[in-house]
Amino acid sequence: EKAVKIAVARGDGIGPEIMDATLKILDAAGAGIKPEFIDVGNAVYLSGNSSGITADAWDVIRKNKIILKSPITTPQGKGYKSLNVTLRKSLGLFANVRPVMSLSPFVQTHFPEMDVVVIRENEEDLYAGIEHQQTEDVVQCLKLITRPGCERIVRYAFEYAQAYDRSKVTCMVKDNIMKLTDGLFHKVFDEIGAEYPEIKKEVQIIDIATARLASRPEDYDVIVTSNLYGDIISDVAAEIVGSVGLAGSANIGTEVAMFEAIHGSAPDIAGLNLANPSGLINAAVMMLAHIGQQTVADRVKNAWLATIEHGYHTTDIFTQGRSTKKVSTDDFADQVI
Amino acid sequence: EKAVKIAVARGDGIGPEIMDATLKILDAAGAGIKPEFIDVGNAVYLSGNSSGITADAWDVIRKNKIILKSPITTPQGKGYKSLNVTLRKSLGLFANVRPVMSLSPFVQTHFPEMDVVVIRENEEDLYAGIEHQQTEDVVQCLKLITRPGCERIVRYAFEYAQAYDRSKVTCMVKDNIMKLTDGLFHKVFDEIGAEYPEIKKEVQIIDIATARLASRPEDYDVIVTSNLYGDIISDVAAEIVGSVGLAGSANIGTEVAMFEAIHGSAPDIAGLNLANPSGLINAAVMMLAHIGQQTVADRVKNAWLATIEHGYHTTDIFTQGRSTKKVSTDDFADQVI
Ligand SMILES: CC(C)[C@H](C(=O)O)[C@@H](O)C(=O)O
Ligand SMILES: CC(C)[C@H](C(=O)O)[C@@H](O)C(=O)O
Repeated sequence: EKAVKIAVARGDGIGPEIMDATLKILDAAGAGIKPEFIDVGNAVYLSGNSSGITADAWDVIRKNKIILKSPITTPQGKGYKSLNVTLRKSLGLFANVRPVMSLSPFVQTHFPEMDVVVIRENEEDLYAGIEHQQTEDVVQCLKLITRPGCERIVRYAFEYAQAYDRSKVTCMVKDNIMKLTDGLFHKVFDEIGAEYPEIKKEVQIIDIATARLASRPEDYDVIVTSNLYGDIISDVAAEIVGSVGLAGSANIGTEVAMFEAIHGSAPDIAGLNLANPSGLINAAVMMLAHIGQQTVADRVKNAWLATIEHGYHTTDIFTQGRSTKKVSTDDFADQVI
Repeated sequence: EKAVKIAVARGDGIGPEIMDATLKILDAAGAGIKPEFIDVGNAVYLSGNSSGITADAWDVIRKNKIILKSPITTPQGKGYKSLNVTLRKSLGLFANVRPVMSLSPFVQTHFPEMDVVVIRENEEDLYAGIEHQQTEDVVQCLKLITRPGCERIVRYAFEYAQAYDRSKVTCMVKDNIMKLTDGLFHKVFDEIGAEYPEIKKEVQIIDIATARLASRPEDYDVIVTSNLYGDIISDVAAEIVGSVGLAGSANIGTEVAMFEAIHGSAPDIAGLNLANPSGLINAAVMMLAHIGQQTVADRVKNAWLATIEHGYHTTDIFTQGRSTKKVSTDDFADQVI
């Protein structure tokens, strides 16, 4: 089969280490891909380009339409825009899909039955980045919600539930306070949900919903919510099932798709060969499935699972009274291979 | 000593049951208070008053300056404003103080060492209630942050930490995205924090912070954050330590203070004598301390603790392999007495 060209961003902090580990695994698994590296992130920012991405990088992305991306660091300061958000918005990556599943007993968790997929709206909400300094002492940020935006993400969630044989979709909002904005999300959920009579539906207020997710995650299946709530609850879900270091994610648009770990660039452990590459490996598995290489995707996933089950773990992972070998980023990748 | 007149709102749903239970306990403990009941909530809304509060109720509140309040139900629909928010804003109750502490082994939790106080900004943020329908398909809500608002809540948090001998204050924001609004909160935290050199300070991004709170709550002490984040994380904290049904809260202003449970009106179990009055009891304990009746406050708190320790529990509470007697709201109150 012909190799699919993908845009690859090695990222900042622990980014390069986990990307090298992941590409090594994909290569060994016989993935039909050809990485084309793009310049984004810290070096680009510091070269004076406040967008954090070069024109060449845009070209490669627009041509290849598939991105595998490590975390990047946005410099502090008002001038710098988060490249994550720029990519998601510019490329119309409206759905952020974040599956989180228990690996108990191989990875320690209080919630061995947990199996949740967070479908997070990825372009609107407070992430639209519309902020104003009104007076010296008053600042504001606009939370923007549109009907097409709600319809797209809610339909995606129900289609996802149907495709993956999931029985329930939970919508999380705060529409007892934000009656227009979160109210619209809720209303669209009810409308579109009615087209999927075989799928169970529930709507919960985000405060108690996050609390329930943290205490009884087994009660959830597919969750659909807006951008900021989705940002928070997907980290909660990933952390209570073992580590934010384990979860991969897909940013899905109509033309382009981007795959990344859900964690950040962890500058404190950068360059130490300590980082857990699992999040990016799982993102790569989602990418392979997306481009139709399901056999290779399964091969990588199973090898990764076997590695976890055999007790090879980076230092962020805890196990339940089982023997475990603490390994480096590189050694972990070699074990997967 | 002369009885302090307090405004008492019996509330909706389970509100009246838990208020009756709480007042019975306060009476038995010899609290020097005189309840004056006010009309707020569902009945007022349904009488055609869309504010949910009568002019008489405002008078009693303005006169007494202390409110003990049960949860109320705001009817669905754009016309109805949340009375919680109205009271907090109109009365300038800028600080929402929510202590959450482990009762292990008497109440089951994965986190026996947890002892966290959430100090939540209570007047600004998306709760300002400024929403607009821009076009038929586009709605927006304004997140409003002011420097005086940030200064007041941050200083309150440091003063609280100092007064209660707490060693660390954690600020939670999302200023990698909201550079102006959350950036201001962060900046003010750094500025005012510098005046408290003996207190440890840390700033965390709200997504990973909520995840850490849910997985390692022992790492936190005092948390200060804006309105919506505080709403979410205080529910998380309360739920993972046992139940949202246990936590009380104080809404503190310069003139008026309001004390309430952090949970809602739970219409599904209303009138069944099943509700846990503990949240409101703990709110009442905070109220007694606030009006200088510390001895009675301690008496109620200790009696409540002893009741929990002796295994008398409403149905929402789970214990760790200990014998437990499931009791009604009334019986629980009688045990405390
Ligand atoms: C890095 C940050 C901009 C990003 C977000 O807030 O979306 C991250 O937290 C995520 O969840 O992918
Ligand atoms: C009932 C609701 C308006 C309220 C809030 O969002 O503040 C509640 O959740 C709380 O935390 O006190």
